[in-house]
Amino acid sequence: MGKGKGTEKVTFNIDKEKDFSRWFSEIIVKAELVDLRYNLKGFVVFRPFATMMIEKIYELFEEKLQSYGHLPCIFPSLIPKENFEKEAQHVKGFVPEVFWVTEAGKKRIEKLALRPTSETAFYQLYSLWIRSYRDLPLKLYQRAQVWRYETKATRPLIRSREFYWIEAHNCFETREEAEKQIKEDIEITRAVMEEKLGVPFLPLKRPEWDKFAGAIYTIGSDSLMPDGKVIQQPSTHFLGQGFAKVFEIKFKDKEGKTKYVWQTCYGPCISRILASVIAVHGDNSGLVLPFSIAPIQVVIVPIFVEKNKEKVVKKALELEKKLRSYGIKATVDLKDKTPGEKFFFWEMKGVPLRIEIGEKEIKEKKLTLFLRDLKEKKKIEEKMLAKKIEEEGKKLDERLKKKAKRWFKNKIVEAKNFDELQKAIKEGKIARCNFCSINKEGTKCAEKIEKNIGARVRGMRADINEKPEGNCIVCGKKANVVVYIAKSY
Amino acid sequence: MGKGKGTEKVTFNIDKEKDFSRWFSEIIVKAELVDLRYNLKGFVVFRPFATMMIEKIYELFEEKLQSYGHLPCIFPSLIPKENFEKEAQHVKGFVPEVFWVTEAGKKRIEKLALRPTSETAFYQLYSLWIRSYRDLPLKLYQRAQVWRYETKATRPLIRSREFYWIEAHNCFETREEAEKQIKEDIEITRAVMEEKLGVPFLPLKRPEWDKFAGAIYTIGSDSLMPDGKVIQQPSTHFLGQGFAKVFEIKFKDKEGKTKYVWQTCYGPCISRILASVIAVHGDNSGLVLPFSIAPIQVVIVPIFVEKNKEKVVKKALELEKKLRSYGIKATVDLKDKTPGEKFFFWEMKGVPLRIEIGEKEIKEKKLTLFLRDLKEKKKIEEKMLAKKIEEEGKKLDERLKKKAKRWFKNKIVEAKNFDELQKAIKEGKIARCNFCSINKEGTKCAEKIEKNIGARVRGMRADINEKPEGNCIVCGKKANVVVYIAKSY
Repeated sequence: MGKGKGTEKVTFNIDKEKDFSRWFSEIIVKAELVDLRYNLKGFVVFRPFATMMIEKIYELFEEKLQSYGHLPCIFPSLIPKENFEKEAQHVKGFVPEVFWVTEAGKKRIEKLALRPTSETAFYQLYSLWIRSYRDLPLKLYQRAQVWRYETKATRPLIRSREFYWIEAHNCFETREEAEKQIKEDIEITRAVMEEKLGVPFLPLKRPEWDKFAGAIYTIGSDSLMPDGKVIQQPSTHFLGQGFAKVFEIKFKDKEGKTKYVWQTCYGPCISRILASVIAVHGDNSGLVLPFSIAPIQVVIVPIFVEKNKEKVVKKALELEKKLRSYGIKATVDLKDKTPGEKFFFWEMKGVPLRIEIGEKEIKEKKLTLFLRDLKEKKKIEEKMLAKKIEEEGKKLDERLKKKAKRWFKNKIVEAKNFDELQKAIKEGKIARCNFCSINKEGTKCAEKIEKNIGARVRGMRADINEKPEGNCIVCGKKANVVVYIAKSY
Repeated sequence: MGKGKGTEKVTFNIDKEKDFSRWFSEIIVKAELVDLRYNLKGFVVFRPFATMMIEKIYELFEEKLQSYGHLPCIFPSLIPKENFEKEAQHVKGFVPEVFWVTEAGKKRIEKLALRPTSETAFYQLYSLWIRSYRDLPLKLYQRAQVWRYETKATRPLIRSREFYWIEAHNCFETREEAEKQIKEDIEITRAVMEEKLGVPFLPLKRPEWDKFAGAIYTIGSDSLMPDGKVIQQPSTHFLGQGFAKVFEIKFKDKEGKTKYVWQTCYGPCISRILASVIAVHGDNSGLVLPFSIAPIQVVIVPIFVEKNKEKVVKKALELEKKLRSYGIKATVDLKDKTPGEKFFFWEMKGVPLRIEIGEKEIKEKKLTLFLRDLKEKKKIEEKMLAKKIEEEGKKLDERLKKKAKRWFKNKIVEAKNFDELQKAIKEGKIARCNFCSINKEGTKCAEKIEKNIGARVRGMRADINEKPEGNCIVCGKKANVVVYIAKSY
């Protein structure tokens, strides 16, 4: 990707904290992640630089899922209307968003839904596959795109009408096992989002009025964007036996008694996770990509004048070859540009490490290494280069992770009353508050917050037990729950 | 996958050569590759055992494509009707097969095609991305499903209404470069299909009447099924400048002159390639999977009586752990079945290697290894097990490849006249014949063959130059070409 003869000069400088919306819209185009000129509203073209990261994030999730005993499968993307309408809450929740296929060739056909999610496709087959407790647990997932005719404003990567996710659908003998899966899902999210990608989040049990259509409850993972709005990342739904009953997913237990299975489903949206990675780590000069998913991990910029060009370029290509032989994604930039232009370009693209090599570096057998996140240069010995690059990559990822964690932690503040809540939200923070209830009876208080402050009650922690002490910051009644409140995408 | 408590006995015994159609239909269900009970004609559910192989085949192709400088991208699956209708031949060829989205939520919307192929999606953007000779060559691909409302009978894996492929779309400065890409595509097909999967094929330039809608010419890769019918595997289309003209894909060359690009596209259908792997290597007892793509490469069957059960199972699990630590997909079968039942089951599933371990094996530090393809047992030392398994896996793949190659070669016969052609086709062979022309003027002769013998002129070799000597076996006029004729899917 680094090669070629392009000469276009690229500049990027937008204050991410102050003007995040513009920062995001411009960087994703400038860094050639997406193209927004496809002539269909809400549909995006992913260019190679984004596609390779999406593939890598898929790989991270699939590896983790498989290590926990989930297996991949592929279901059709079209769902007959009759399947789709079986679960009443579900159909009610999704019908406004469904794209319908109604014609094939020149014929009218029975209406088919382009899957907005695949419960009603999977569960028909689950009812055939599951007969006995021996068939349980059944834990399958698919990597797939889904389509939703979003009525909210669409935003590339964040909310599109076609998006790329994994959906895992699981069946268990008991409620306990199902709820254990939900804890495991949070662990999977943490292992990938936090550990690998450095994106912190809060796993929150959503209020009753904000759960998945057809679920008993929903856990959503809220990450934060630099504009102070949270964005829902992977969510897990506890489906109970609702779908099992309408799709007749039954099994004979050890005693020969027929029972319905307990179900959960889990859905990390890969394209949206990429949005968080970009938003959380980027800076005013552009992208800052984690070494772990960067399509180019190291760019090598040869610095030469005409008389030593051949020698320097040869050495640069040698280093590229060597690094590649160790599985490191390295590329030499041989474009017809000045070193300065190249630096600028690759900084904007977020390439984590840059090697500068010229006459001096060759002579000293020491290379100049530029760290994208710190914008600092250091010298490294050419000896054992691949090992050192791996180390520097890991260190960079650790720095990104730590920095994001600190940032996230500082954005969560206590709000003891309505005024403090208002102030926190205004400052782009997540407010931690005492609240009456996330069940139905809390609806009015939540509506009041939304109406007056434009923020939403995102739910209570699902990973730890937080006890409220005091009264609801809205109605003043005894608080039953600690909730997190924020503006959201 | 090997674990669990299932007790269902599985039997499989169908003569693959004599009754291929039944063999194929039954094995793909019995071996749990697909489920055909999804209530939508022509749409198939891929179960984990098939999905993991599909993923692996994707990986093989993507690795190869990337090594040749192709980069991945993702395009929307919906194509506005206006884009789709831009290229006249193309739209004519595909319109009878298009699924149309006409509604979203409860609204009628402008008709959108579910992509049957993505030329008309890619090329709109290509016209924006390509400005100068510096932007060329442009070689992008996507892994994606496409939808075609097939009017021919659908068959799982072979011809479905939704199928999984890669489509590579390439632009070049000159006709020569484009045609060089076509040769490279044949090499990519060969590297994966023949070298990795052991499936031989003939790359054939299709007759004029059988080319892709919108192409100047098409190269199709014909593999053979055990019933004597050929099946088209990856095809490459030379698009010339036809699409470039309607989509305005132009560039300024080194002299500043504006020119249209030359285009090719390439499409390996992954699910269909899996069908060939299954069909070519399987035998009367079921699947025989190449070690290179088997989701389970080694099954370990512990053989014990009650009193040494613990010891044998412990050892079996140790071996599993060891093999897995070397990246070998090993699994111990601990189901509550007899060893005989397990042998039968995993032979049917096509697992390439089986380790049997009992008291004797533990004592002698030698394991019994069963080779699925030869159905032979041999002893191997426990020492350096992983290395030996890797070796045996490679040897097995080499045997499969060699056997398939020999079989394929024997199925291609010379036919010097119409009678010999008829005889060859009746015997389920591919006939190599002198033929008048694969341009328009040969249409009548081809029709005669199709009408009288039910076979089709598949084309002339695209990889080597074959000179005809003599006359067309149909019309008796001077032959201009050597063609291959066969029944086909």
